[in-house]
Amino acid sequence: MTKEEIKSKVAAAVEKARADNPLVPSITNTVTANFVANAQLTVGGSAVMVYMLDEVKSMVDSCDAFYINLGTMLPVLEEASTAAAKLLCAKGKPWVLDPVGIGMGESRSKCLKEFKACKPSIIRGNASEIIGLANLWGVSSDSSSAGPRGVDSVDTVDSARKAAIDLAVFTGGAVSVSGDVDLVTDGKHVVLAYGGSKHMGKLSGTGCSLGGVCGVYAAVADPFIAALSASMIYNLAGSVAEKLAKGPANFQMEFMDNMYMANGNMVSSSRFEVKEL
Amino acid sequence: MTKEEIKSKVAAAVEKARADNPLVPSITNTVTANFVANAQLTVGGSAVMVYMLDEVKSMVDSCDAFYINLGTMLPVLEEASTAAAKLLCAKGKPWVLDPVGIGMGESRSKCLKEFKACKPSIIRGNASEIIGLANLWGVSSDSSSAGPRGVDSVDTVDSARKAAIDLAVFTGGAVSVSGDVDLVTDGKHVVLAYGGSKHMGKLSGTGCSLGGVCGVYAAVADPFIAALSASMIYNLAGSVAEKLAKGPANFQMEFMDNMYMANGNMVSSSRFEVKEL
Amino acid sequence: MTKEEIKSKVAAAVEKARADNPLVPSITNTVTANFVANAQLTVGGSAVMVYMLDEVKSMVDSCDAFYINLGTMLPVLEEASTAAAKLLCAKGKPWVLDPVGIGMGESRSKCLKEFKACKPSIIRGNASEIIGLANLWGVSSDSSSAGPRGVDSVDTVDSARKAAIDLAVFTGGAVSVSGDVDLVTDGKHVVLAYGGSKHMGKLSGTGCSLGGVCGVYAAVADPFIAALSASMIYNLAGSVAEKLAKGPANFQMEFMDNMYMANGNMVSSSRFEVKEL
Repeated sequence: MTKEEIKSKVAAAVEKARADNPLVPSITNTVTANFVANAQLTVGGSAVMVYMLDEVKSMVDSCDAFYINLGTMLPVLEEASTAAAKLLCAKGKPWVLDPVGIGMGESRSKCLKEFKACKPSIIRGNASEIIGLANLWGVSSDSSSAGPRGVDSVDTVDSARKAAIDLAVFTGGAVSVSGDVDLVTDGKHVVLAYGGSKHMGKLSGTGCSLGGVCGVYAAVADPFIAALSASMIYNLAGSVAEKLAKGPANFQMEFMDNMYMANGNMVSSSRFEVKEL
Repeated sequence: MTKEEIKSKVAAAVEKARADNPLVPSITNTVTANFVANAQLTVGGSAVMVYMLDEVKSMVDSCDAFYINLGTMLPVLEEASTAAAKLLCAKGKPWVLDPVGIGMGESRSKCLKEFKACKPSIIRGNASEIIGLANLWGVSSDSSSAGPRGVDSVDTVDSARKAAIDLAVFTGGAVSVSGDVDLVTDGKHVVLAYGGSKHMGKLSGTGCSLGGVCGVYAAVADPFIAALSASMIYNLAGSVAEKLAKGPANFQMEFMDNMYMANGNMVSSSRFEVKEL
Repeated sequence: MTKEEIKSKVAAAVEKARADNPLVPSITNTVTANFVANAQLTVGGSAVMVYMLDEVKSMVDSCDAFYINLGTMLPVLEEASTAAAKLLCAKGKPWVLDPVGIGMGESRSKCLKEFKACKPSIIRGNASEIIGLANLWGVSSDSSSAGPRGVDSVDTVDSARKAAIDLAVFTGGAVSVSGDVDLVTDGKHVVLAYGGSKHMGKLSGTGCSLGGVCGVYAAVADPFIAALSASMIYNLAGSVAEKLAKGPANFQMEFMDNMYMANGNMVSSSRFEVKEL
């Protein structure tokens, strides 16, 4: 794909999400669920959050895509999240995994390991989470990291490059590494996407909600374009919002409303570079 | 009741909620609990959210009204929500049911069915949820719907008119159907209430928080006036906020603060029509 | 300590939190978890919320301080919260207890009783919660209160003075009583801290998030200075935000961003008085 082809597909994905209003249920954490839902609505999706196995079955049947984020584990999620992944895989529906919290406790690790057999369409995380998942799944050999510190990265995006590519090659989908510069890869292309804001690091849920928005776009585009569209709308709205905002709270409002106002052309004009593999 | 009598009672309810600060605990979902609590505080209530049976017993004893919204099911809620409904019914305390998520999984349906024996004072939902509940309870014969799509309505408010009236006749309370135009009925009167904003559809929790505010007013007024007062303060604040807002996030802030600033006279002047039954 | 020594230590704590970015996990309620996390990030901390025993073990190992708030009980928290307190105590790590919801149900009371053996570094609550905890632990003889009404105080800060001092003497840490005027004591000093806003009473989570911020400062200062620094940054940002805000929602945004912008000198200049014991 040329850069122009990518831009055209991103613009189309942004418009199609608003036109189609895809239903994208989530299993997600209790801390940022509201931010995830509102971000999904803001870009055109329909959001609903579930915890229980019977809800999962019902929603996998009717969804256009699905989002799994185990930021807060609960006993009920041990069964529900792995069942969701298996059902999504069996039905061939696109789904996004955010391995937030990787390394905190065995129950989360157990679920994350089971997801390996149910390859997600998109994996989105910060650098330490992506390296951690590549290690947990044993798909990358030379990445090393002390692991996330809570939910924060201790690694640079660049240091997660190989892990991201290896994960993408393994899943056949896309991997998105969030940071000052975002890296998105399908294992064949590597794109660096620029923009965003310093305030994002001071705002709980920017990563989680980006994962949710990846889910919305995964319902209307292939995983690589979906992951990139999500990064680009975040980068665009983040850059604009930072200029208007006093601090992280004001930023959050401006960021959401600038996502709401962004059309396909605006998003596809957000700066990115295609790198040779 | 004449239109002037209704206006006078709505104005009184709005003022009394601020004066009395009624305690209105909720069993509600994890996605929008914060919005529900803040909306309840904004109109004068005191909010607290509970999950467990022992908390439910304690709070039913001391509450002025109660709100049940099963937007996110959890195993603990299967027992707690049905116990809450039974206790509220036994003690004759007003309570509000929001059947959000109806159709997603058997555990929620099981709870919703049990609520039939513990008639809620107010039922609030979108058109598909109201039709779904009337069907689930078998109180309405000719309403048909494909059911909600996740938490979104696929039906018009008008198409839920008969289901709403039938539910209100069955419970002896009020039913509120939210949409572009809200319909509120006690089975004898049908009121159409105008206002609100397009942004409400892009903001997670507008329906849930409206249910919570119905609960606050149910502590200080009869179910019909309470449900109508809640719709009217939402319509008023929503209309004003839309004029001030760039997008859904800015809207949410303006909406909440315009609810906070609204007095009884302002709310009772929000446009509504009384329809013959 | 003289007033000037206190001011100097508060300024240092505020700056050190921003420099060190301490990791302060929480067990906290589902209603205000997002507010807690964002407040912690805003003053320089790193936030993560946990529910399960395995997560607790992992996070107690790596944390700089910890926050426990049982505002919403869940079955999983009965084991996890008491295990967290015991582990924190055994490892000598600072932790903050917010006894919100005290009096609602036996499961919460049971946990709160078990915390007595794992003395928290800081206890933060409203007047009724502080009196309630002193009574539950049997460390104060002449305080009486009808107990909180839901999560709201029915007592004045002044009426909780003895309970606060008795609790602080018992734990050897600090106790912070929030209200129109905050009272902070280490059992030897009593400080009254002025400022804040009327809007705080109309905004869900101001108390919970203050507890979370106490946790951030407890990672970089002794309990008394930590609790006071948290009150003072809340009082400062609250006073400034009230002048800018139309209502509680606008206030929340301004409050958060004024906390974000506050440096050590600004916070240490917020008004307080040292009272003789």
